[in-house]
Amino acid sequence: MMKLLIVGGVAGGASAAARARRLSEDAEIVVFERGPDVSFANCGLPYYVGGEIAQRDKLLVTTPERLRTRFKLDVRTRSLVEAIDRVGKKIRVRDLAAGREYEESYDKLILAPGAAPLRPAIPGCDLPGIFTLRNLQDVDRIQQQVSRGVRQAVVVGAGFIGLEMVENLVKRGIATTVVEKNGQVLTPFDPEMTTPILETLAAQGVSVLLGQTAESFQQSPDGLVVRLRSGQRLTAQLVILGVGVRPENKLAVDAGLEGGPRGGIRVSEFLVTSDPDIYAVGDAVEVRDFVSGDPVQVPLAGPANRQGRIAADNIFGRPAKYRGTQGTAIVGLFDRTAAITGASEKSLRRAGRPYRKVYVHPAQHAGYYPGAEPMTLKILFHPETGKLLGAQAVGGAGVDKRIDVLAVVIQAGMTVFDLEEMELAYAPQYGAAKDPINMAGFVAGGMLRGDHPQVDVEAVLAAPADRRPFVLDVRTSQEFSAGNIPGATNISVDDLRSRLDELPRDRDIAVCCQVGQRGYLATRMLRQKGFSASNIGGGYKTYRLFQPKPRGAPAT
Amino acid sequence: MMKLLIVGGVAGGASAAARARRLSEDAEIVVFERGPDVSFANCGLPYYVGGEIAQRDKLLVTTPERLRTRFKLDVRTRSLVEAIDRVGKKIRVRDLAAGREYEESYDKLILAPGAAPLRPAIPGCDLPGIFTLRNLQDVDRIQQQVSRGVRQAVVVGAGFIGLEMVENLVKRGIATTVVEKNGQVLTPFDPEMTTPILETLAAQGVSVLLGQTAESFQQSPDGLVVRLRSGQRLTAQLVILGVGVRPENKLAVDAGLEGGPRGGIRVSEFLVTSDPDIYAVGDAVEVRDFVSGDPVQVPLAGPANRQGRIAADNIFGRPAKYRGTQGTAIVGLFDRTAAITGASEKSLRRAGRPYRKVYVHPAQHAGYYPGAEPMTLKILFHPETGKLLGAQAVGGAGVDKRIDVLAVVIQAGMTVFDLEEMELAYAPQYGAAKDPINMAGFVAGGMLRGDHPQVDVEAVLAAPADRRPFVLDVRTSQEFSAGNIPGATNISVDDLRSRLDELPRDRDIAVCCQVGQRGYLATRMLRQKGFSASNIGGGYKTYRLFQPKPRGAPAT
Repeated sequence: MMKLLIVGGVAGGASAAARARRLSEDAEIVVFERGPDVSFANCGLPYYVGGEIAQRDKLLVTTPERLRTRFKLDVRTRSLVEAIDRVGKKIRVRDLAAGREYEESYDKLILAPGAAPLRPAIPGCDLPGIFTLRNLQDVDRIQQQVSRGVRQAVVVGAGFIGLEMVENLVKRGIATTVVEKNGQVLTPFDPEMTTPILETLAAQGVSVLLGQTAESFQQSPDGLVVRLRSGQRLTAQLVILGVGVRPENKLAVDAGLEGGPRGGIRVSEFLVTSDPDIYAVGDAVEVRDFVSGDPVQVPLAGPANRQGRIAADNIFGRPAKYRGTQGTAIVGLFDRTAAITGASEKSLRRAGRPYRKVYVHPAQHAGYYPGAEPMTLKILFHPETGKLLGAQAVGGAGVDKRIDVLAVVIQAGMTVFDLEEMELAYAPQYGAAKDPINMAGFVAGGMLRGDHPQVDVEAVLAAPADRRPFVLDVRTSQEFSAGNIPGATNISVDDLRSRLDELPRDRDIAVCCQVGQRGYLATRMLRQKGFSASNIGGGYKTYRLFQPKPRGAPAT
Repeated sequence: MMKLLIVGGVAGGASAAARARRLSEDAEIVVFERGPDVSFANCGLPYYVGGEIAQRDKLLVTTPERLRTRFKLDVRTRSLVEAIDRVGKKIRVRDLAAGREYEESYDKLILAPGAAPLRPAIPGCDLPGIFTLRNLQDVDRIQQQVSRGVRQAVVVGAGFIGLEMVENLVKRGIATTVVEKNGQVLTPFDPEMTTPILETLAAQGVSVLLGQTAESFQQSPDGLVVRLRSGQRLTAQLVILGVGVRPENKLAVDAGLEGGPRGGIRVSEFLVTSDPDIYAVGDAVEVRDFVSGDPVQVPLAGPANRQGRIAADNIFGRPAKYRGTQGTAIVGLFDRTAAITGASEKSLRRAGRPYRKVYVHPAQHAGYYPGAEPMTLKILFHPETGKLLGAQAVGGAGVDKRIDVLAVVIQAGMTVFDLEEMELAYAPQYGAAKDPINMAGFVAGGMLRGDHPQVDVEAVLAAPADRRPFVLDVRTSQEFSAGNIPGATNISVDDLRSRLDELPRDRDIAVCCQVGQRGYLATRMLRQKGFSASNIGGGYKTYRLFQPKPRGAPAT
């Protein structure tokens, strides 16, 4: 009879345990969880702080008791696994409640220890009022601090969890400043795609300090003082550190299991570690990036769940491969949503991989139906084959849908030409006869077929003065005067045919409109009349993404 | 210089015209439209009746004037094309405003005449107060009638447009009865998937008379009397006929172009008719069903738009194929959404094609986040390869997203095994770590791998008494007493391990829970203990879909 031990009882561990029981009614399955809870809703923690999730017990997806009765699992909470004896095939466990140690033998072992929030070695980072966020106990402590009266908060790190915490602190009426060491928020995204997020944060009164780090924390009569590298000092009664996580690899490293360059536990595509009797899943493992093939460390709940399932399948004689992680992620921030799947432009550039890109700015549903909200959708694809490499979207409703569709496109290995042909559900409340997905496909397909030459706005702006193209803005004069690319000439597309003689024949022309559609028509028109014209992809709206407004002053 | 004539200026015709201009700045392009408007929002018409779309001009996606100035198109509205002289390559046009006729020659001709609402030959069907719905003029007439004071309305036909009209009439405070000749509403769907729609209609006070036809219309002091086949008489001041459309094929038939069995104009995959200089697109053409390969007639805006584009591509030297239509469609009805893509179960059964099916009833996003709403998702797939053949969903938010994802899966030729691995965007407001798509994949994959034997609830119910399986309901006793499958025995899954001796070893066991998940665990458990157990797919919730409650009495 198989004896399976699982270290960690949250996403990957709990999935593995439930799957294992379904595959084998008779196996002995023991789950060791360091904390008091199993299978809690990590991704819900910030929303409990904000009050959106009102009851704490909603965060308990299941309980040790439920796992025991329903799945006949031996669940041991507050049990820290301290060492693996690979030769003897046993582990050493510390029972934190009873304070005793014991050994447990295994046939197979699954490691699902997760990842721990980084606590940078900043002077004062252990002062009261400074928290990281991993589990319900962390949230309880944060709630306690908030209930003591927090007027100002500082969130260090503008990643997914950092910004979710920002939203929820603002919803509690707390003046919040976010400090981010990079020059952008949400670093998995390309920087220009985060401009609408910066606007949302500014509109909500959040101060965003980019390119800044916290240098020290000190106690003060008003709570804490956070001193930044710039010398600036922020006062706060609550500090959240959301600067990333590191895989919990100690157990694996001590046992001599192979690790990857980022500290994750190395596993095969069957999720076996370098020891054939030990599997590892979830935030602690290094997986293959589905698009690039590179090893990556992706702490996400969905992949952890699927990995748990796959490890159990393999252990119980159903060989299954994990296809890699494509980094599909989403974050809601007030009325905005930002989502990503596959490769980003910066990751492609960093890796020296060829790509082209397209921006479209459609509404999520038919413009004639009330409630249409604009979104910006960026796709990245191979310059020859058109194979989709990545996608990012930011906007309101419907962003999640388009990124999910494009996640499937990447999984399928489909191209931008396939996007043109997609038959998606259309009624005016839900989409458009030409869905944003189709629109992105039309633009990208037209580009690759040579019908729709495009120029990136960054290239136009970066060109030296003597080689800068003639920028032709084909919007109406009203649109033009409301804001335009410096140096542009305005001739409305509707007047263009009769004013061709005003355009240079000895210079490249970069055509610009609001979102790229009129510019496309104008570009087609001009090229057929012998001009060397290209369309600025995504038009003035894309230009604006590259020109974020300066942020407001911090809420000191 | 190419001279292109386009008959019809709405979805397919307008798309073809705009695309043609982008491809050729110099071509002479003339668009003939019988009505006064081009490119109006057909799909928005019901929402203008209901007041959701408040301004009539919102329905005008573009205007003849805009097409003239921006696209240099010769747009002739109120112009009826009466005949095609294929030998002389010219058409005869009646200018309805001037009352004169003239000829126009062409190099290439695109037919985009659309489809006309059927007006069944029922006595009295031309009485005032009885309307069909195709264009803005129809809506104007309906609005006029409503403004005269309509207390009761009858909608004949419970298809997409019929039900959209029902919703909007109810929103105007009109007591509405819908009469449908089939035994279900929304006939593209499988009947059980429409049960939630019937519930919504009942909750909104709408009377739904299935299996009924209108036999005559008569004037009465209260407006109109609709006499049904049953003899029942309904009083109404407004009647909408929404019983389907027929392709506008007269022009094509008179010109000797080949047609299909359903009256549509026959076209190649390049959208050429039997005359190489004549293309046809939109609701008037017969296309290939992408899943079955059969010829079909699908009057939808998305395909019409794409076809218009493709026809123009082919005419201007960019060979492009139309891949067929997969029947992706969606309808919103009060707070419910129903959507479909690919083949239905009944179409597969009719065609004698092999399939298996799975129902899941997940929430659209994490249950711990407020606002989780249940949906029912049904997928149909090949019994050996697992290739996805079709999908239907009904629920609230998130139905559109899952059907769009599955539409792409069908386009890609992917399988249920691919659904298991999909990495979709998860944060608690948007999805789940195991998305409904993953769940459907897990169940279907488990079924095909033999890990998860399932039985369809219809098969259990239809089995003769002596071969009927032992129905084991593994829900709690509270759930069981709130409603169960007649004859079922209740043992909660949590008690099952200790009560195996109460189960028959000489009989098939059909396990039932609420949505199929506990039933799956119980089935796994029982089979490993030697019982011949299968899980009722989708559990009691699926059973309920097959047991629609009787509808309320009509609002006479």
